[in-house]
Amino acid sequence: MSDLRVAVLGVGLMGADHVARLSSRISGARVAVVNDFLTEKAEAVAADIPGCRAIGDPLDAIAAPDVDAVVLATPGPTHEKQLLACLDHGKPVLCEKPLTTDVESALAVVKREAELGRRLIQVGFMRRFDDEYMALKEMLDQGELGRPLVLHCAHRNPAVPHGFDSAMVVRDSLVHEIDVTRFLFDEEIASIQIIKPTPNPSGPEGLSDPQIAILRTAGGKHVDVELFVHTGIAYEVRTEVVAEHGSAMIGLDVGVVRKSAARTQRGERGPGTWGGLITPGFRERFGRAYDTEIQRWVDAVRRGVNVDGPTAWDGYAAAAVCEAGVESLHSGQPVEVQMVARDSIKGA
Amino acid sequence: MSDLRVAVLGVGLMGADHVARLSSRISGARVAVVNDFLTEKAEAVAADIPGCRAIGDPLDAIAAPDVDAVVLATPGPTHEKQLLACLDHGKPVLCEKPLTTDVESALAVVKREAELGRRLIQVGFMRRFDDEYMALKEMLDQGELGRPLVLHCAHRNPAVPHGFDSAMVVRDSLVHEIDVTRFLFDEEIASIQIIKPTPNPSGPEGLSDPQIAILRTAGGKHVDVELFVHTGIAYEVRTEVVAEHGSAMIGLDVGVVRKSAARTQRGERGPGTWGGLITPGFRERFGRAYDTEIQRWVDAVRRGVNVDGPTAWDGYAAAAVCEAGVESLHSGQPVEVQMVARDSIKGA
Amino acid sequence: MSDLRVAVLGVGLMGADHVARLSSRISGARVAVVNDFLTEKAEAVAADIPGCRAIGDPLDAIAAPDVDAVVLATPGPTHEKQLLACLDHGKPVLCEKPLTTDVESALAVVKREAELGRRLIQVGFMRRFDDEYMALKEMLDQGELGRPLVLHCAHRNPAVPHGFDSAMVVRDSLVHEIDVTRFLFDEEIASIQIIKPTPNPSGPEGLSDPQIAILRTAGGKHVDVELFVHTGIAYEVRTEVVAEHGSAMIGLDVGVVRKSAARTQRGERGPGTWGGLITPGFRERFGRAYDTEIQRWVDAVRRGVNVDGPTAWDGYAAAAVCEAGVESLHSGQPVEVQMVARDSIKGA
Amino acid sequence: MSDLRVAVLGVGLMGADHVARLSSRISGARVAVVNDFLTEKAEAVAADIPGCRAIGDPLDAIAAPDVDAVVLATPGPTHEKQLLACLDHGKPVLCEKPLTTDVESALAVVKREAELGRRLIQVGFMRRFDDEYMALKEMLDQGELGRPLVLHCAHRNPAVPHGFDSAMVVRDSLVHEIDVTRFLFDEEIASIQIIKPTPNPSGPEGLSDPQIAILRTAGGKHVDVELFVHTGIAYEVRTEVVAEHGSAMIGLDVGVVRKSAARTQRGERGPGTWGGLITPGFRERFGRAYDTEIQRWVDAVRRGVNVDGPTAWDGYAAAAVCEAGVESLHSGQPVEVQMVARDSIKGA
Repeated sequence: MSDLRVAVLGVGLMGADHVARLSSRISGARVAVVNDFLTEKAEAVAADIPGCRAIGDPLDAIAAPDVDAVVLATPGPTHEKQLLACLDHGKPVLCEKPLTTDVESALAVVKREAELGRRLIQVGFMRRFDDEYMALKEMLDQGELGRPLVLHCAHRNPAVPHGFDSAMVVRDSLVHEIDVTRFLFDEEIASIQIIKPTPNPSGPEGLSDPQIAILRTAGGKHVDVELFVHTGIAYEVRTEVVAEHGSAMIGLDVGVVRKSAARTQRGERGPGTWGGLITPGFRERFGRAYDTEIQRWVDAVRRGVNVDGPTAWDGYAAAAVCEAGVESLHSGQPVEVQMVARDSIKGA
Repeated sequence: MSDLRVAVLGVGLMGADHVARLSSRISGARVAVVNDFLTEKAEAVAADIPGCRAIGDPLDAIAAPDVDAVVLATPGPTHEKQLLACLDHGKPVLCEKPLTTDVESALAVVKREAELGRRLIQVGFMRRFDDEYMALKEMLDQGELGRPLVLHCAHRNPAVPHGFDSAMVVRDSLVHEIDVTRFLFDEEIASIQIIKPTPNPSGPEGLSDPQIAILRTAGGKHVDVELFVHTGIAYEVRTEVVAEHGSAMIGLDVGVVRKSAARTQRGERGPGTWGGLITPGFRERFGRAYDTEIQRWVDAVRRGVNVDGPTAWDGYAAAAVCEAGVESLHSGQPVEVQMVARDSIKGA
Repeated sequence: MSDLRVAVLGVGLMGADHVARLSSRISGARVAVVNDFLTEKAEAVAADIPGCRAIGDPLDAIAAPDVDAVVLATPGPTHEKQLLACLDHGKPVLCEKPLTTDVESALAVVKREAELGRRLIQVGFMRRFDDEYMALKEMLDQGELGRPLVLHCAHRNPAVPHGFDSAMVVRDSLVHEIDVTRFLFDEEIASIQIIKPTPNPSGPEGLSDPQIAILRTAGGKHVDVELFVHTGIAYEVRTEVVAEHGSAMIGLDVGVVRKSAARTQRGERGPGTWGGLITPGFRERFGRAYDTEIQRWVDAVRRGVNVDGPTAWDGYAAAAVCEAGVESLHSGQPVEVQMVARDSIKGA
Repeated sequence: MSDLRVAVLGVGLMGADHVARLSSRISGARVAVVNDFLTEKAEAVAADIPGCRAIGDPLDAIAAPDVDAVVLATPGPTHEKQLLACLDHGKPVLCEKPLTTDVESALAVVKREAELGRRLIQVGFMRRFDDEYMALKEMLDQGELGRPLVLHCAHRNPAVPHGFDSAMVVRDSLVHEIDVTRFLFDEEIASIQIIKPTPNPSGPEGLSDPQIAILRTAGGKHVDVELFVHTGIAYEVRTEVVAEHGSAMIGLDVGVVRKSAARTQRGERGPGTWGGLITPGFRERFGRAYDTEIQRWVDAVRRGVNVDGPTAWDGYAAAAVCEAGVESLHSGQPVEVQMVARDSIKGA
């Protein structure tokens, strides 16, 4: 199967990240075309990627015959036209949020895609692909905690760019918790209230920050979200589901921490416990390390440099210590490790 | 730059993992050749991978002109001959541990590579590529904790295969902590003692399990390792460095937990603290989710299936809630969310 | 100084706890009088305590000349009359919450005490004496986190008695967070809203559970409280303060976990960290163990029983191992511990 | 029952702590006599405690007819003579470690007590009374983790006094882990080895620090202890038991953290989990807060000062908010809290 040829529209912060991702970490795809309203920027990005060219008009980029799929990282107001072009050309498109900047145009896009009878649009709500959110969703779907009742969220940014206003806290920050709510609860949201407490005196003047959002789902579930975009500290995203038979929290920097009633040996309900799952095996624990190891090795070999990982000497040294270890295993006594001096071997 | 063409020798558990990795998760490489002493197994693996063929003789696989680099996942006793062949052909090789099965042959391999004056061999000590070990190494190298003094390790397996004997605890399990010690301390190991406490009554008969290894580095640092290969519980690898100005532990399933003296606002030494670093920003927090999102999208698009991520309807729903949110931001009152019924749009 | 003679009014669950506390764990006080509307119950309690008698009328108990102070653990509706009697007799009184059962009578009590010009009444908001709440309050008062902005609380009971209704969730459960808010923020509460999400299907019929309380302080700070009185799991009380320069959470069963910006060696703002304080010394770490040790020893000695703590043999055994340890300290070799057989000493 | 009259011998750091404890936190005992080789120090301490006097000779203090029991906090070399005197007078004695300073005299004391046929001596191994150690011991005794196999300990002091030498690390620090081993395993220790790694360059010159102790119990169990008495950081005491079916660690500043295999609803072995027990109820969670509340109230009342806990105004304010809360419970709308102004009531 040949590589997927992708056009990336918009190569600002987010788009440039996607270009790097597709070029160096994603298997089976390559960036064939880039586009940006700053033509020179697009050309500079294209020049760094073998087999990639810049196209000045976004609609031309979408239409290009050597483009199989599109990543949209352009400003929101241009999305509607570009999404419709993707639909017209029958090209799959991954669209960074927002879908469009107002409800009517969003609905128009939904309807057009629906008429085609084929799902071509994916929206960039990336939390659905985060390990912790996926684990939380699976825990809920398996019914381990019973029916979910309440969702508590905190969404804190260290800082936001100049010009970020109070409405952007809703449209650009809260939008993630809106999708998280819909994803976790499989329900639409019926009402929303934004509470504006006394603002943080350390934050930018005129910005309502923090804000508290109170959502109610169609089924009557309660959701609250603390939005605090200028904490000066770090990026913290915490989500807790309170359910019929327990609760689970992610985002404490310690994985999924679960609280529930323990089971006794006979399956009866025991005392309440808190904690998480232990990694079951080495493939789960070190699978990512293997990926990193191999990717770095491949990269080094392709660049023609010496390997920068463990060397033959490292393998030799390990062998020498194991040898002594096995001897001590039998004798129970400390055993000196026998090794040649490294500098006796030029080049080792 | 064209993809690196890799020969994978040995397609057992570990080798098959590497084949899958190179084919679907690693960018810039593809598996060109596979080999196994079970010919049919190699052929079955090759049949699943476009452009891959099986070669019956491992040395022929190494020599093949369309092979740029080699991954060795064959049994240890065959490593020496295969490594020397790689060196002869000047081909980079990633060799699963052990380098070879005895010290003399390991040294011979080291010497041959040194004569070539070019680093071609990397040994598969994958812990050096694990996020936690890398963070620990960096912490030590930056001198934050002062000079390291002591290393405590625990290495626990839920179970090991039938036939795993007491010496294999040293050669196959402890070998990782041997490399971890050398990696973290940048020192050779000078002596080793294996202590055999009363064995676990639940373990296999005849197996010395747990074992305690006591290492001493050339510079006089102490290392102890609990090896326990039949716990019946889970895979736990814990490593704690005790250093001049603090200690740090990984493997508690909660990231790097550090203990050290805090600094006051004026840089003076404050009370002792425990804890870890908070994720600094969304790229660190969700970077991997973005990778997963894009990889899954690329895979889905290449297979020609509908996208399985967030849909246009999800984007529309978010827009509708944001709209109501901004209204509530101004009024302070709960606002009903206005949305069309999903089933009014066929195909949405 | 002679012991404080206390009258305990009401010896139900809470009152009986207070009787036990004053009799066996509190230094400098003794229970001189008990009273309960169930006369026999009071008499049974009195019979177990040396020098204690039951008095049938609560007002007589308050007035008794050998009563220095009063603990009120009677039902709320009787509080007003009993508190006023304590004020009339100038006797200090510790009154379990509520002060009284309605606002008007509570205000009347406040006014009467104020007229006396002497603080005689303490209300039983015991969280103010909890280590974690005290640590959190101190952290705020010292300004370490800057001005507090938002308070998130969860208050979960495994179950409540039959007959507990939706209003009792507010009056009996939420009342603690009401006091916590006022204690931590030093501000009155200006408004309150109770949200009733879809109730827990596993809970008692007719009970609004969980409930969400939204408070706003006089200074505009936001407080939200999840009240969930029938979780079936455990007792969980969690409180998080979000402040200008950081946040702190208690009640995770792991002590105070703090998130804030670290300081570099030169006092500059470093990366964000999470964690807690390490116990500074053995008196902090084991002070409570010493108290327990001594209390149990005193209790055992007074009852005339043999000590049940570490024995002379334990001291001897420790000495023998230390002796061998010091020898090994010099030789570096394992040293056998020399001890007489315990059964060679009859009675040891 | 009248209070136990205690003589405290030695009023240095530890003895003075015990005097304070017996006088203000321990119920049912009082300090009747104090003694110290610094006569003036003993007299100063006695002057502060009602009904307490200083006695110049420790043997006279033991013999005094108004002394029911003795606490020994004198230097180790004087213990033997003082313990024997306590035995001669048939007086219970709580003796700070060490029992005596050499094995022979320790054994002599054991024998003398055994001849009396009555347990009069308790040694001050206070860890046996620590909540975490008690929880760990109970967990082992209940067999939840199966038979214990290995014990890992870390014992770290921020600093030790000038003159603390390498042997004192064994005699004064390690002695606690020696008792912990015997307490947890119910076995004597058969051999010991002290390993001296390269010392901490930041520590006092000439001190072997850190030290590693390797113990082996009579039953063949392995114990290792890191002793590090000059870390410059904090006081850390960590103990991990590795057992047949799981392991448990205390001293992480987060309570008992357990790792074990979970049980499914049908009692089958599930995936490995880590975590701890959740507090089961409010008495467990806030019992200590109640003690503190009452003790502080008793102390304040006895000193004749105004109460310093929650006031009647606090009770009134809570009532006013509850009232509004119940109104909102019915209406679902925010309700303003109605309160009189505090300064309208003089003295409130």
